[in-house]
Amino acid sequence: MPTTAPVAPAQVADALTALRAQVPLAQCLTNIVVANWTANVLLAAGAAVAMVDNPREAGVLAGLAGGVLVNLGTPYAETAEAMEIGAESARAAGVPWVLDPVAAGGLPWRTHLARSMLVRQGPAIVRGNASEILGITGGTGGRGVDSSDSPERVLGTARDLAARRSCTVAVSGEVDHITDGDRVVTVANGHPWMTKVTGVGCSLGALMAAFAGVTDDPLVAATAATALLTVAADCAAARAEGPGSFAVALLDELARLSPDELSDRVRLGSVARSEA
Amino acid sequence: MPTTAPVAPAQVADALTALRAQVPLAQCLTNIVVANWTANVLLAAGAAVAMVDNPREAGVLAGLAGGVLVNLGTPYAETAEAMEIGAESARAAGVPWVLDPVAAGGLPWRTHLARSMLVRQGPAIVRGNASEILGITGGTGGRGVDSSDSPERVLGTARDLAARRSCTVAVSGEVDHITDGDRVVTVANGHPWMTKVTGVGCSLGALMAAFAGVTDDPLVAATAATALLTVAADCAAARAEGPGSFAVALLDELARLSPDELSDRVRLGSVARSEA
Amino acid sequence: MPTTAPVAPAQVADALTALRAQVPLAQCLTNIVVANWTANVLLAAGAAVAMVDNPREAGVLAGLAGGVLVNLGTPYAETAEAMEIGAESARAAGVPWVLDPVAAGGLPWRTHLARSMLVRQGPAIVRGNASEILGITGGTGGRGVDSSDSPERVLGTARDLAARRSCTVAVSGEVDHITDGDRVVTVANGHPWMTKVTGVGCSLGALMAAFAGVTDDPLVAATAATALLTVAADCAAARAEGPGSFAVALLDELARLSPDELSDRVRLGSVARSEA
Repeated sequence: MPTTAPVAPAQVADALTALRAQVPLAQCLTNIVVANWTANVLLAAGAAVAMVDNPREAGVLAGLAGGVLVNLGTPYAETAEAMEIGAESARAAGVPWVLDPVAAGGLPWRTHLARSMLVRQGPAIVRGNASEILGITGGTGGRGVDSSDSPERVLGTARDLAARRSCTVAVSGEVDHITDGDRVVTVANGHPWMTKVTGVGCSLGALMAAFAGVTDDPLVAATAATALLTVAADCAAARAEGPGSFAVALLDELARLSPDELSDRVRLGSVARSEA
Repeated sequence: MPTTAPVAPAQVADALTALRAQVPLAQCLTNIVVANWTANVLLAAGAAVAMVDNPREAGVLAGLAGGVLVNLGTPYAETAEAMEIGAESARAAGVPWVLDPVAAGGLPWRTHLARSMLVRQGPAIVRGNASEILGITGGTGGRGVDSSDSPERVLGTARDLAARRSCTVAVSGEVDHITDGDRVVTVANGHPWMTKVTGVGCSLGALMAAFAGVTDDPLVAATAATALLTVAADCAAARAEGPGSFAVALLDELARLSPDELSDRVRLGSVARSEA
Repeated sequence: MPTTAPVAPAQVADALTALRAQVPLAQCLTNIVVANWTANVLLAAGAAVAMVDNPREAGVLAGLAGGVLVNLGTPYAETAEAMEIGAESARAAGVPWVLDPVAAGGLPWRTHLARSMLVRQGPAIVRGNASEILGITGGTGGRGVDSSDSPERVLGTARDLAARRSCTVAVSGEVDHITDGDRVVTVANGHPWMTKVTGVGCSLGALMAAFAGVTDDPLVAATAATALLTVAADCAAARAEGPGSFAVALLDELARLSPDELSDRVRLGSVARSEA
């Protein structure tokens, strides 16, 4: 007997309606590779975006934003300081923030940065692939960009992390797994071309920050972001000829998708505790 | 009775002809979010581009360029220093430069940087949305990314700024307003999708720097850049399906538009002094 | 009588087959303008990509990568240090690395950086346009972004550089020339729109780093990368309407091209020593 998904399609649709009505500001401290793409994903979906990542100004915007993203793809001394200031400003102001510990585990500096912010600034959501979730918990580490692990295999680790840090943990993969330590949502949409366009995962973290600005439940925010991006990817793949035209179509679809079509197409599920 | 536009369509067409014949080098000190897009806009339009933004080298290229852009989207200690050096090198060499004070007003550091360069290095053109023009003049400030103000409402401020600093001020919005303190040009082309692609406004500042390299009158340069980008946007929107395909089509149209078609399509106007 | 090309079409096809089978990791230390595009080119072609460019972490990944790219487009104090560390780590680990001395010659700091790494860390491949190859050798210098020189005219300089530094030198232009000091390969594919999209040359250097991870001969790696990119450009231009749609189609074609079609379409040649 299938386990009922703890987030319903209608909640995902309502979150998208709220996003477009409220146009939350996502303040993104992210990497140089994906900044442009991430901003375009946010704008296409219906959010507003700021990307102020210097120590003098990052905290000002983080405190005023609907949600904040800290993505560790290409940290430098100055932007790493801005990330800590931004996360602290978000924490102090009660603004939900998302930690994307890119390549954590394999690279010591960012792993230290990620763990420090995880413990001290308490993100609402931690988002990564299976290896990054292992990396930030210190369970195995050392594998960097390796993505041979699957969300299914690290679900126990994700659940423990979520429970211990009172946050939502989102693990991306063929089937995305999202948990707050108690509930587990799976999202089974998406297309392999998502891995052939740089920054699709990074933009997912940014969408989670935007959705966190319009819903009180981070599990719903993370699920809505994942649903929107992966359903848009399904639609885009159907009319693309390769990774270039797929990326273009993905932006078009993010803007085109209606809440109703999103709730119709999203494939939400769950995992029984005994299976985790 | 309509006021005659102080820049004629034929002048805009001539500026585009000159741009493609002379291929001016636009040296851009800009932000990490839009650097790629800005370079592609310049290349598509027919200009050449350099983006050297470190303190050791920025001044060398600024002194040799046709025009220089300083865009304050994501300043860092090192690039802010390079911007001041680049602007000073341009000033000393008589190279026209464009100041784009992104989010000035709401963020103290960049507001200080923008005002300092405005006063000390004398840009040929200041470009921004209505809130940024208010922010740099100190009139109201504090609103950052807020774009609730319209070009019409800040025209008096823009005119005063232009007159006081002997520069051209270009205010973007649904109808763009461009003034040198005396004359006012309006450009009524463009499409809402321009706000759904990150960096379209930033690339407008870069085009102004390029056009400033091929015309002696900054009002004409700013008008030609605005005309080219917004008319190309009109054409692109007619065949796009969303913000992703719109951005791609915009680059195609920037390369395709002929001077004649530009002068046919551009909707230039003015504002009587009594209305401002 | 035409000189036989020292790299055969079948070798280029085999290199592409190997790239897609082995998915080498290209660790790229590159510039803020082209980072996104470069990553998308690598992913579309079938490689994996990392872009870790801070001094604390760049060396770790460089030592583990299949190939490393150092591109001097927008160096900063911190990233320049990371580039030297990355190149040194590659050298020490026996990982082939590619030096792209963007605008060398005209800008003293990067010219010094490029020459220092050339001498001390011994790249497998040096890639640039004709002016940059002159710039790094000190022969003429001072021309920066000038591309008025042709590969044909600097072939003697390229050959000497390759022989003196025991590396492969790839000079891009209308006909690309690639030499290891002894052999010379020419590749006569490509389209003028390649110069209207920013970063196409930069992404060629990244592809060379990826191919160097799957072949022992840097001349073959540089030739295979050039063949793949320029043949994909031929195919993309045939169905594009301008530089925007060309860039999108280029990514699609990089993913679509089969080894067989590549070997059919590539136009390899050589230059007799007496002509050089």
